[in-house]
Amino acid sequence: MPLINVKLIEDVFTPEQKKQMIEKITDTMVEIEGENMRSVTWVFIEDVKQGDWGIGGKTLKASDVHSLQKGQAA
Amino acid sequence: MPLINVKLIEDVFTPEQKKQMIEKITDTMVEIEGENMRSVTWVFIEDVKQGDWGIGGKTLKASDVHSLQKGQAA
Amino acid sequence: MPLINVKLIEDVFTPEQKKQMIEKITDTMVEIEGENMRSVTWVFIEDVKQGDWGIGGKTLKASDVHSLQKGQAA
Amino acid sequence: MPLINVKLIEDVFTPEQKKQMIEKITDTMVEIEGENMRSVTWVFIEDVKQGDWGIGGKTLKASDVHSLQKGQAA
Amino acid sequence: MPLINVKLIEDVFTPEQKKQMIEKITDTMVEIEGENMRSVTWVFIEDVKQGDWGIGGKTLKASDVHSLQKGQAA
Amino acid sequence: MPLINVKLIEDVFTPEQKKQMIEKITDTMVEIEGENMRSVTWVFIEDVKQGDWGIGGKTLKASDVHSLQKGQAA
Repeated sequence: MPLINVKLIEDVFTPEQKKQMIEKITDTMVEIEGENMRSVTWVFIEDVKQGDWGIGGKTLKASDVHSLQKGQAA
Repeated sequence: MPLINVKLIEDVFTPEQKKQMIEKITDTMVEIEGENMRSVTWVFIEDVKQGDWGIGGKTLKASDVHSLQKGQAA
Repeated sequence: MPLINVKLIEDVFTPEQKKQMIEKITDTMVEIEGENMRSVTWVFIEDVKQGDWGIGGKTLKASDVHSLQKGQAA
Repeated sequence: MPLINVKLIEDVFTPEQKKQMIEKITDTMVEIEGENMRSVTWVFIEDVKQGDWGIGGKTLKASDVHSLQKGQAA
Repeated sequence: MPLINVKLIEDVFTPEQKKQMIEKITDTMVEIEGENMRSVTWVFIEDVKQGDWGIGGKTLKASDVHSLQKGQAA
Repeated sequence: MPLINVKLIEDVFTPEQKKQMIEKITDTMVEIEGENMRSVTWVFIEDVKQGDWGIGGKTLKASDVHSLQKGQAA
């Protein structure tokens, strides 16, 4: 505790970006809670398969999220 | 918000059935909450590996669920 | 299995609406998976406290969601 | 998507600290994924009751976590 | 890691029973994974509100579960 | 209900060990809650990918956990 779970759609982010998420979210939490809490601050990522995540009922592929990142309508 | 998470055993349902689940659960939620909530209604599915789900301690494979669907004892 | 988890913000919906969500999501799932799966279709709702859910970093109270439902900017 | 869930023990952090967690984790994610993803970056916090979280089988109260924060053995 | 999450309906079990669950599930895990893993074995319990859990669409109160425990139809 | 979710890092445990976790956690729960609750006691395991779990910001591979099991620093 604290425990942070991040859900992403698979193949949207690179392994390097996922590593950054884990490191930076941990640092962010430790800034708020204090350095002594670092060893009990756990962050883990889970990938949801492409097509298995719907926003407003519309399912998303990695390419849809990439379009969204570029400011194009998904 | 609302956020709906569906856990299934992998290989029990087809991609088409999973797409239907996402669309129809979204529609069901929107009927209750109002159409303006559609864009913030998220539904995502996660598959649990065959053999990694136990009911009463008995682990299930996709074939066990298919038997259950047909009304045969799993 | 299947297992459906619904996360809401507390005090947005009435107990009657929550009951409808459980019943209608179950019915929706059973339509897709077959009537024999009804007894192993579980739906449960969890409330997140007001102020503890952020969209784009902006935290939401029940009143914000009610505004959104009416088509007013949250 | 992305969806970030933070689990804490209740009464360890103040409402202001929880608000900071939501804002800063969102900002951290947006730095990695790009500003266009902000509106679909959701962060929500759930509190676990005191005594209902065990590390190595030893259950924790808020006071135990406060001791840990100060560098005292929990 | 490992991380074990237990969901119950509130007011079904006593605090003492919940403490036992945390201790005994931890011991069970440590028997399988080895004693060195104890400190990174986390077990936490979350309560779902009465009426917010449905089996086959039928919502359950604590009294329904107590009937089930006694072998009476819920 | 009860519902128990176990998160592991993939490739740390064998299929046989995972089967034991499901069986023994179920038995542990049934000892506390009573034998009549067995059929509504569900345990399922989810694997998190190697490298996607961080403790204190340090990501773990299966080999790190194996070192930890042997009492070597991860």
